[in-house]
This record gives sequence, structure tokens and C-alpha cells, in this order.
Amino acid sequence: MLDERTMVELGALLEASSVASLATLHEGFPAVSLTPWAPADDGGALLVHVSRLAQHTSDMLADARVAAMIAEPEGSGTLAQALPRVTIRGIAREIDRSSPEYETAKSAYLARHPRSAMTFGLGDFSIFAIEPHATRFIAGFGRAFDVGREELQQALRR
Amino acid sequence: MLDERTMVELGALLEASSVASLATLHEGFPAVSLTPWAPADDGGALLVHVSRLAQHTSDMLADARVAAMIAEPEGSGTLAQALPRVTIRGIAREIDRSSPEYETAKSAYLARHPRSAMTFGLGDFSIFAIEPHATRFIAGFGRAFDVGREELQQALRR
Repeated sequence: MLDERTMVELGALLEASSVASLATLHEGFPAVSLTPWAPADDGGALLVHVSRLAQHTSDMLADARVAAMIAEPEGSGTLAQALPRVTIRGIAREIDRSSPEYETAKSAYLARHPRSAMTFGLGDFSIFAIEPHATRFIAGFGRAFDVGREELQQALRR
Repeated sequence: MLDERTMVELGALLEASSVASLATLHEGFPAVSLTPWAPADDGGALLVHVSRLAQHTSDMLADARVAAMIAEPEGSGTLAQALPRVTIRGIAREIDRSSPEYETAKSAYLARHPRSAMTFGLGDFSIFAIEPHATRFIAGFGRAFDVGREELQQALRR
């Protein structure tokens, strides 16, 4: 169980961030890319809106196992190894464009990325929901926590 | 071949950054972590100084294939998907602490991370050199480039 201070820190990190480092498997090799993300409305998933032309998309379609890291940007004077970051291991699932879930996910995504509206007009883009299986939060030096699924959901939903 | 403007941008990104997103294989799953890094003196590798207690270290010892991403921090007003970033796929090799290479690597690392000197006194830390095999630079919207090995070396060395 995270204490209240740590929950607040986790929520603040997730709220302030709009990009994640997305690790995928590329023909068995580890790959990492930068991806804008948004929390699903119910906090149950991370949403990414990705192009079929991008390698991470074909990677996720070939093997749904991913890890996403959201980190506080460097530059604040915080020592690099103490930067708060959360790493979420999970499974990526493409959301069917004709499902009601798609419209909800699209709205949630655009709430964080209003300037991305035009990419929803492009045929090669789709939304993937990354459903978390295990989450680790490093809040600072010597402050590493396992985050329960409901705790993460609460932090994403705030 | 990168043009001069792109080489300057790549060099500036590499020079400004002190942390990388490091993707490793963890029991066959993709994993991602935040790691301070520094360029090797000759520009031929990225250096990371990591603890044996950290998962990425045991991952690299079990499977040397890694990918490291260095990205411009968000917050400058640049649209998230246009943030400059470079992704380097490579092989991680632990540097023998008793080799002359170790002292050179330590100096290069401390030049970028002077406040990390005390971690070199800890027995569980070691330096890994990540030797690049393939590099991709996304300089902005619609500006994606394959970076040759010598170009990367030049950009890291500046």
C-alpha cells in the first residue's frame, strides 16, 4: 500500500506527463520509442494513438507485451538517478474503431492532446489500450514502490 | 548521410541530455528504465554506471541486447510527437574494473555526472559500454534519419 504522500506524487507525475517511453519487442530485440499517451477515463489503461507506419505499432501487433515509462523531465536540478518515474508493464490491445469504447478512448486521448485532433482523420492511426499488469514507482532516492492495480487506476483517474 | 544542420541538432541533443530510457529484455518481456549515461571519450559507445541490485543490470548480463533512447524533455512547448529523440540499438558489455579501459570510462562518465563520484566507491556498481549497432534520429515532424556508425561517433565525441 502506498502512503498518501506517495499517491499524491504518483498522481502528479502522471498528470504532468504527456509522453511515455514505450518498450516493445522487435523481432525478439528490445526496442524503445517515444509516444504521447493519455489515461483512459476509468484509469484502467494507458492509451496511445499510433500510426501503422511506426515500428512500435507493428511490434505491438506482433507481440502485445510492452512496458511504458513515464518520467519527470530532467532539467529541474534533480540528480538524474533520483528523477521520479513510473514503469508499467502490460499488454497492448488495439481498440476496434467501430466499438463504443473507441469514442470514449478518443475523447480521453484528446482531453490531454487537443492539438492531435487532426491525426484522428488519418486512416493509418489507431488507439491501443495498454492494460497494466505490474507497476513500479521510483519516487526518488531509496523510494521505490510496487503499485497495486487499483492504486494505479486511482492515480490515473484523478 | 546527415546534412550539417541535422548533425548539429543530433550533437546538441546528445550533449544536453544526461538520462536515457534503457530498454532491456527481462525474462523475454520488454522492460524500460531510466539511466544516467555519458558518451565514451572516443564517441564509440554510451556508458552507463549501474548497480547489480537493479533489474536492468541483471537483464543486460542475461541478454546483452539493449536499446537506449535519448529524448528532448517535454515542456518546451514542442508538440509531444515532434520532440527530438534518438534511439540507439546496441550490445551492452560490462567493462572489467581492472582494465585500463575502466579508468578512461570512469573519467568520461564523471565528466558528465560529477555528482556521481561517490557511487564509484560502491562495490555493486559497474560500467557497461553500449556499443551501437543501429541508430535512428527523429529530429522533428517528418524528419527521421538513419544515423551511420561514424556519424553517431562524431556526434557523441563533439
